[in-house]
Amino acid sequence: MSRPLLPALFGEALGTALLLAAVVGSGIMAERLADGNAAVALLANAVATGAALVVLIEVFGPISGAQFNPAVTLALAVRKHLPWSRVLPYVSLQILGAIAGVWLAHAMFDMPIWQTSTKLRTGPGQWLSEVVATATLLTVIFAALRTQTQTRLPYSVALTVVAAYWFTASTSFANPAVTLARALTESFAGIRPLDAPGFILAQLVGVGIAVGLDRWLNRVTPAPLPE
Amino acid sequence: MSRPLLPALFGEALGTALLLAAVVGSGIMAERLADGNAAVALLANAVATGAALVVLIEVFGPISGAQFNPAVTLALAVRKHLPWSRVLPYVSLQILGAIAGVWLAHAMFDMPIWQTSTKLRTGPGQWLSEVVATATLLTVIFAALRTQTQTRLPYSVALTVVAAYWFTASTSFANPAVTLARALTESFAGIRPLDAPGFILAQLVGVGIAVGLDRWLNRVTPAPLPE
Amino acid sequence: MSRPLLPALFGEALGTALLLAAVVGSGIMAERLADGNAAVALLANAVATGAALVVLIEVFGPISGAQFNPAVTLALAVRKHLPWSRVLPYVSLQILGAIAGVWLAHAMFDMPIWQTSTKLRTGPGQWLSEVVATATLLTVIFAALRTQTQTRLPYSVALTVVAAYWFTASTSFANPAVTLARALTESFAGIRPLDAPGFILAQLVGVGIAVGLDRWLNRVTPAPLPE
Amino acid sequence: MSRPLLPALFGEALGTALLLAAVVGSGIMAERLADGNAAVALLANAVATGAALVVLIEVFGPISGAQFNPAVTLALAVRKHLPWSRVLPYVSLQILGAIAGVWLAHAMFDMPIWQTSTKLRTGPGQWLSEVVATATLLTVIFAALRTQTQTRLPYSVALTVVAAYWFTASTSFANPAVTLARALTESFAGIRPLDAPGFILAQLVGVGIAVGLDRWLNRVTPAPLPE
Repeated sequence: MSRPLLPALFGEALGTALLLAAVVGSGIMAERLADGNAAVALLANAVATGAALVVLIEVFGPISGAQFNPAVTLALAVRKHLPWSRVLPYVSLQILGAIAGVWLAHAMFDMPIWQTSTKLRTGPGQWLSEVVATATLLTVIFAALRTQTQTRLPYSVALTVVAAYWFTASTSFANPAVTLARALTESFAGIRPLDAPGFILAQLVGVGIAVGLDRWLNRVTPAPLPE
Repeated sequence: MSRPLLPALFGEALGTALLLAAVVGSGIMAERLADGNAAVALLANAVATGAALVVLIEVFGPISGAQFNPAVTLALAVRKHLPWSRVLPYVSLQILGAIAGVWLAHAMFDMPIWQTSTKLRTGPGQWLSEVVATATLLTVIFAALRTQTQTRLPYSVALTVVAAYWFTASTSFANPAVTLARALTESFAGIRPLDAPGFILAQLVGVGIAVGLDRWLNRVTPAPLPE
Repeated sequence: MSRPLLPALFGEALGTALLLAAVVGSGIMAERLADGNAAVALLANAVATGAALVVLIEVFGPISGAQFNPAVTLALAVRKHLPWSRVLPYVSLQILGAIAGVWLAHAMFDMPIWQTSTKLRTGPGQWLSEVVATATLLTVIFAALRTQTQTRLPYSVALTVVAAYWFTASTSFANPAVTLARALTESFAGIRPLDAPGFILAQLVGVGIAVGLDRWLNRVTPAPLPE
Repeated sequence: MSRPLLPALFGEALGTALLLAAVVGSGIMAERLADGNAAVALLANAVATGAALVVLIEVFGPISGAQFNPAVTLALAVRKHLPWSRVLPYVSLQILGAIAGVWLAHAMFDMPIWQTSTKLRTGPGQWLSEVVATATLLTVIFAALRTQTQTRLPYSVALTVVAAYWFTASTSFANPAVTLARALTESFAGIRPLDAPGFILAQLVGVGIAVGLDRWLNRVTPAPLPE
């Protein structure tokens, strides 16, 4: 909250960039090696993403809060955990960082930097998946705030994402910056630009559900309320 | 124990629903991607279930106790850790939540909501597996209560289930609500409705063994006894 | 040390039985499902064994010390961490428990209870592997005793075994009771009875190396020395 | 810092040897079993390496600091966390230990001890990968020093390496001693001797970036500064 602004913006940009490099880079590597077995590829992609998330949240948590996700930033502002004045700069840097991370992955794998995805991801099942994934992710973050167990949060967030890669039909984007950036890669992790708005809308519905649920829980449970 | 009833019931229902969505959803995803390699599918299913369990127990623990399992609820009542008056409402909400979670998974994967399984799971090996799996799960929970190391419990329970997915012939249901709900999915994780009663009976035998073992251990070991 | 004898013996027997049920049961399951891909089978076997080890050490640690391994029991006696009078009863119960665990796995998978392995495991590479695996395992346990970080031990031991399943040519038995019991299963995890003595001898050499190394480290490093 | 020199040198040598035995040994095992599916092989290699790293850092941390990596040793000296007089002896023992570890792996798998790799690893994508991997690894270590959360470090370092095995095109060597030693194995984990200098140069660039970033963060953030 009282974090200095400049390193915070830097942390959101660099952290989100490394997150996307991990998501897209491990997707490219997995697709190249998996010999057509998509389950092995998704398993590797999930393990790499989860491992990266733990570390990135630990490293950038003290610097920027390690949100890396406009849905999280928005939800924390609604919950009065982050000043509204920080939302726009944080979200901008998250999106720029996410795109830079995708390009870094392309550069590491000697692929063209500029790509756009043709991977179709649309329909009610996909949208419902994004609602569930985003609401679940935020509920996990709110629970840690409510019970002051934030040292566990890097692992809890990572495990949530690992599970959601598998149990949602969309493989759980749950992050508007990630959605935009993954539209710019023609690889395992991509999403057709045309399908991104549907995903982002679904993610915002997930934010609404999680915020409402958190309000109700804070009213009816006697748990300590930090802040 | 002194948790308010309404959020507790809500927590049992929502937590069990998300658990089943994770179990069945990751089973569907794994089956679709695994290209016929059932070991890869079960590995993904186990990783997703374990990751989800850690997070769900952390999130719903302070709200409802995060039992999600009639066998656990029954055992805690026998052990005087939960008032008997809570058993019926908890178990009812666990079963309703479990079914809702299976349906949520079907909806996310654009499948018909209503299904019944034709997957045969019966015979002495399967029943013995459920006795062992349930007794082991409860022994792990009782051990945490006995030694007051409950902050480790989310990981211990998750790892127990991950191991038991592989070392029991039944892939370890160990939960009557889960058993009933998985009878309602014609997918990787299903069980023929006709076979559900045998599983549930075996699970109750497992409860009996774990309770007896716990009583004996509490008598002969000098460990601290909370409550 | 001052643990009551009866529950300690019971804990060693039951814990070792469940460990072997996990090792052999997950080996059978993995072999059945893996469709000939032995790497997937060993990965599942390693994950299940590691997960089981964490939980079994947490559960039986306060009851018996959770040694489950004659090599560990012997090394702790040499290091004066366990009275010599306990070595024979502990080791006997570990061996009986290990055999019972293999039989439990066979029963769960509807296989004949009595089996003997025909799986050839012999030669200098295998023996060197067992020396390295056992010395490493004991070095990890001694390090935890030396620095009083025993709450981390369940995870450290489990991760040691997971790594050693892969980096030794023998898939790391590192345990005489496990070696004897695995001679009694004609499955993925088996070892020809004729090859068991070579493995056990190598494991004893590993004990010697680890004890010598620990003595030297205790002399030259200023770390705190509990006990 | 004030660690006695002799056990420290011994710890760096033995720890680096076991690390390389784990990396190369699990690579050999994975290649033998994976039946041509390189993704399964890399997954096993990553899991084994990560598990080994956690344990080796926990065991050798109190003895030598568990650096196992000339890039880390150099960066800690620049940051005044290690006296410059220790750099040359530490690095020498790390390199000797690394080579011994590769030879130990060859001996365990009954392969010729002396080998040289023919595996081509060169080009801008590979070099960029090594810059990113090394800078990330050091940033994780510096973050732990900055926030005094060093008990988490074994897991953070291991998860960084697990992720980087997948998201970099080079599978993340990020360690000059490891690079030299892996030139001496004609297996899954090898690198052509001719390509080693390019990797090491890229790793040194990564050191420079991480050190610069750490200096700037220490100036602009109010986090506690130990040492």
